[in-house]
Amino acid sequence: MSEGINRQVLLARRPVGEIRDQDFELREAPRPEVGGGQFLVRNLWLSFDPTQRGWMSDLPGYMPPVPIGGVMRALAVGQVVESDHPEFKAGDYVSGGLGWQDWILTDGMTEVGPLQRVPDGIDPKAMLSVLGITGLTAYFGMIDVGQVAGGDTVVVSGAAGATGSVAGQIAAIKGASRVIGIAGGREKCGWLTDVAGFDVAIDYRTENVLTRLADEAPNGIDVVFENVGGDILEASLANLAMRARIALCGAISTYNQVEPSPGPRNYLQLVIKRARLEGFLVLDYAPRFGEAVDALVGWVNEGRVHYAEDIQEGLENAPATLRRLFSGQNLGKQLLKIADAPIA
Amino acid sequence: MSEGINRQVLLARRPVGEIRDQDFELREAPRPEVGGGQFLVRNLWLSFDPTQRGWMSDLPGYMPPVPIGGVMRALAVGQVVESDHPEFKAGDYVSGGLGWQDWILTDGMTEVGPLQRVPDGIDPKAMLSVLGITGLTAYFGMIDVGQVAGGDTVVVSGAAGATGSVAGQIAAIKGASRVIGIAGGREKCGWLTDVAGFDVAIDYRTENVLTRLADEAPNGIDVVFENVGGDILEASLANLAMRARIALCGAISTYNQVEPSPGPRNYLQLVIKRARLEGFLVLDYAPRFGEAVDALVGWVNEGRVHYAEDIQEGLENAPATLRRLFSGQNLGKQLLKIADAPIA
Repeated sequence: MSEGINRQVLLARRPVGEIRDQDFELREAPRPEVGGGQFLVRNLWLSFDPTQRGWMSDLPGYMPPVPIGGVMRALAVGQVVESDHPEFKAGDYVSGGLGWQDWILTDGMTEVGPLQRVPDGIDPKAMLSVLGITGLTAYFGMIDVGQVAGGDTVVVSGAAGATGSVAGQIAAIKGASRVIGIAGGREKCGWLTDVAGFDVAIDYRTENVLTRLADEAPNGIDVVFENVGGDILEASLANLAMRARIALCGAISTYNQVEPSPGPRNYLQLVIKRARLEGFLVLDYAPRFGEAVDALVGWVNEGRVHYAEDIQEGLENAPATLRRLFSGQNLGKQLLKIADAPIA
Repeated sequence: MSEGINRQVLLARRPVGEIRDQDFELREAPRPEVGGGQFLVRNLWLSFDPTQRGWMSDLPGYMPPVPIGGVMRALAVGQVVESDHPEFKAGDYVSGGLGWQDWILTDGMTEVGPLQRVPDGIDPKAMLSVLGITGLTAYFGMIDVGQVAGGDTVVVSGAAGATGSVAGQIAAIKGASRVIGIAGGREKCGWLTDVAGFDVAIDYRTENVLTRLADEAPNGIDVVFENVGGDILEASLANLAMRARIALCGAISTYNQVEPSPGPRNYLQLVIKRARLEGFLVLDYAPRFGEAVDALVGWVNEGRVHYAEDIQEGLENAPATLRRLFSGQNLGKQLLKIADAPIA
């Protein structure tokens, strides 16, 4: 790749079902020239998040869809290489909506909000996981929506993902007496109990989640951090404690489905257990991101929150890397490294 | 019928799907004799409530099922005719879990809680509707769970029923700017707008609820009082305002289904709208029933809450009367009169 070329991965069409390579198109544009108060960023690490599947669709969502022919929207970390902007200087690491491209010329505002300067002393790519949207989602979802309290039994679905793994560890820090993770495969389950300190890991690929939850949460589940949907959500609903809180983060099992899948058949368990199913979006908590990042930095430094990264390489592999989320291949945060930092 | 006979309708078997006459059995027992600190009640008015369908099933619920061979559980109003109890005297009207039978000998406690003496100056059968469980359910569901506030757009499904009709009127009293009821049939819809003061009534039998809600709630629905389930719930979910509250009371459209019906396919609207679906049971609010009854009595006397009663007659018609709830025949509270008050 020439440093004078800006490779951009465009959304070529809206996917139907599974994401395919043909849903994207690679364009080579000239590297932008700095000027007009803007600054040029070299993209280094791309973040992969389930919500990107929604951005590719034109169904109503919390944000407009990526336009056909537009650069695929993505969070990323990059490095400022040249600046005509008073607040960003060459060498700064920035994180935000940089998209699937090598270079971006910006005034600091992107379609997903302002770029953040990565504070000194922090691994820049941690801004895409434990200190970024996924960690913040775990924090506000578990604490504010789930209202986890001492002694609670907590279940996290998608527990080996970037959000779920942090959510479960926050529950333990907040005094949950039992943290149960649901994940796919022996490796993920082993990581949950051996590294992330979950009390129990249930492998949905080989175990009956419904009966395992009944066994492992005999007094019922007080908080569910829900990422998956389908049978997994139904299994949690069937095992709620009275006044349970389900923090509804997403439903990755359903995002590729062409027809809307059935909702939870047993949702009337919410009546029987006087329980609450509540959706949330981390962007609403932006005024409190500082509080959450301070807490997360502290917990990571104290060794109380562990996080895993699954790192692929090469911008051309972005579509395949996105698919890894939906096939459940990633353990921890799915990242794609697309360049080394140009400025040491 | 001889006054010396106690006709009792027993649950003969658990219904599969629709309720059938053969699911019940009529037994004639002797009228009980008073003694041992108990008192004898002549049952006058039976209450019919969707939750009775759940009591007939042996699926897990909030209360044990009616045993096979047991008197069918029901709320009712009766009159004390003879008493050996210090607190209840002949002539008192009482309401509570008196069941499908002519007579009941009791110490004042039933399987659904203590019998309540009907205060003087109140139509006794109002204790089964606007001043009873259905009115209380409307009160706490709309105010505490739905958290209705001034200016809200409110949707009530099952709006012409005993609970829904009161819920919508409470919303208006609490300052909702627009109250939309969903009901079946022209008569019910006319009653909602002409008598109960709903701003809009949507007839689900002849109208497209999804598009009507979009038209009538262009800024979205802030509070849903949800009684029905199925397509009706999906139509509300598709039209939520940000931070909407859905007070989940029940799902009458699903109670007779043999297989669990699909849950709402679009439940992820809860994420997009940061909304809450919360189940509740009125029994949890028992310590505050006095507050609610005082408010409801006031509103009824001021003509701000109207209620309708659908009165059938004859204990032998209890099964057919229960079916009226599920075919949507009742306008307002479904009651069955089984006797005149023996003491004037």
